[in-house]
Amino acid sequence: MRLRHKPWANDMLADYPNYVIHDADHPENLRGKWSERFGNDQPIHIEIGMGKGQFIIESAKRHPEINYIGIERQSSVMVSALEKQIEADLDNVWLLRENGRDLTDYFAPGEVDRIYLTFSDPWPKNRHEKRRLTYKDFLAVYEVLLHDAGELHFKTDNQGLFEYSLASFSQYGMILDEVYLDLHASDFEDNVMTEYEEKFSAKGQRIYRVHAHFPGK
Amino acid sequence: MRLRHKPWANDMLADYPNYVIHDADHPENLRGKWSERFGNDQPIHIEIGMGKGQFIIESAKRHPEINYIGIERQSSVMVSALEKQIEADLDNVWLLRENGRDLTDYFAPGEVDRIYLTFSDPWPKNRHEKRRLTYKDFLAVYEVLLHDAGELHFKTDNQGLFEYSLASFSQYGMILDEVYLDLHASDFEDNVMTEYEEKFSAKGQRIYRVHAHFPGK
Repeated sequence: MRLRHKPWANDMLADYPNYVIHDADHPENLRGKWSERFGNDQPIHIEIGMGKGQFIIESAKRHPEINYIGIERQSSVMVSALEKQIEADLDNVWLLRENGRDLTDYFAPGEVDRIYLTFSDPWPKNRHEKRRLTYKDFLAVYEVLLHDAGELHFKTDNQGLFEYSLASFSQYGMILDEVYLDLHASDFEDNVMTEYEEKFSAKGQRIYRVHAHFPGK
Repeated sequence: MRLRHKPWANDMLADYPNYVIHDADHPENLRGKWSERFGNDQPIHIEIGMGKGQFIIESAKRHPEINYIGIERQSSVMVSALEKQIEADLDNVWLLRENGRDLTDYFAPGEVDRIYLTFSDPWPKNRHEKRRLTYKDFLAVYEVLLHDAGELHFKTDNQGLFEYSLASFSQYGMILDEVYLDLHASDFEDNVMTEYEEKFSAKGQRIYRVHAHFPGK
């Protein structure tokens, strides 16, 4: 994603403490207490790398019975998600600005019911394998975060990343529940599009999607 | 595959006992004795549903260090494979006519080093799931047949069958080693094409391929 430098982004995020959990809010104190923060016991779905937030905001509109946390590192991207939430003012969304910490610092084991990875950076070079969000070290984190019946939902337009990820999930010991090799031509009904997805599928690019879980989970 | 009725096919297969193992040869007697029949201890790779045999014959030409067994039920198709073997006269190929029996009748546990499934019938209707060669009941047979380090190599142009098969392998407990979502555009080097594959890839159809193994195998 091309980043425009927005020197005011951090200030803007800090100005909306009802929508954004910022570094200064010590998000690690919310670990194990997200239901308390939402004020109810609805399932918690998180998106890691929410970007401009279209997916998380649209998902939250469609599913008021689920709580969503959109996680993003880049303030200058995150402000676009904040703008959408200011407009939508949804009770079931928090935007979490993470700062390179391990996600287990923010969530207790089993606190999350579903993890979304959408159009993650493919890091195509072999020497960057460890940066891919479907690399085994990240899967180990997701395994801790997810509740017993929890699922990982991953979608991408990047063929190489999808091939890699299917093998990575499997080799880690995850079970593939559903595989879609051309999501938009499939009968999958509840797909919420990201900004990227709209752009790339309009160009005729295939979108890949997989649902997987950890065994014993 | 369109089948032309060839009333002479069974007679022709019976006429070449040096290439073909026919029902009358009691192939169940070869169970556990395939190395003896080949006269050496080379690894044994089998193709289930070899059709007209281009894949098995070409593979055997490229890899004299491996023994191949092409398995087919339809005599009228199998004669095309036989014609290729008559021409090639390869020492490392046997053509096995099977007659709807369980493959464990023909092979001892662990006797096979690799199983190929190439362009198997997709049986797209849900009610025909049990006929797909990647259905769990077949996987249970392959698990018995395969040697500890054995692999299943599966390729198809059928997107639905490939999606189904990835999930089926995973849910059975198999591990995906490699996934190719566009084989002919990939860096995979030792691909031997089937008749189907040549035809469909010439039309621009994607070919899918996966290598998988059974854990503890």
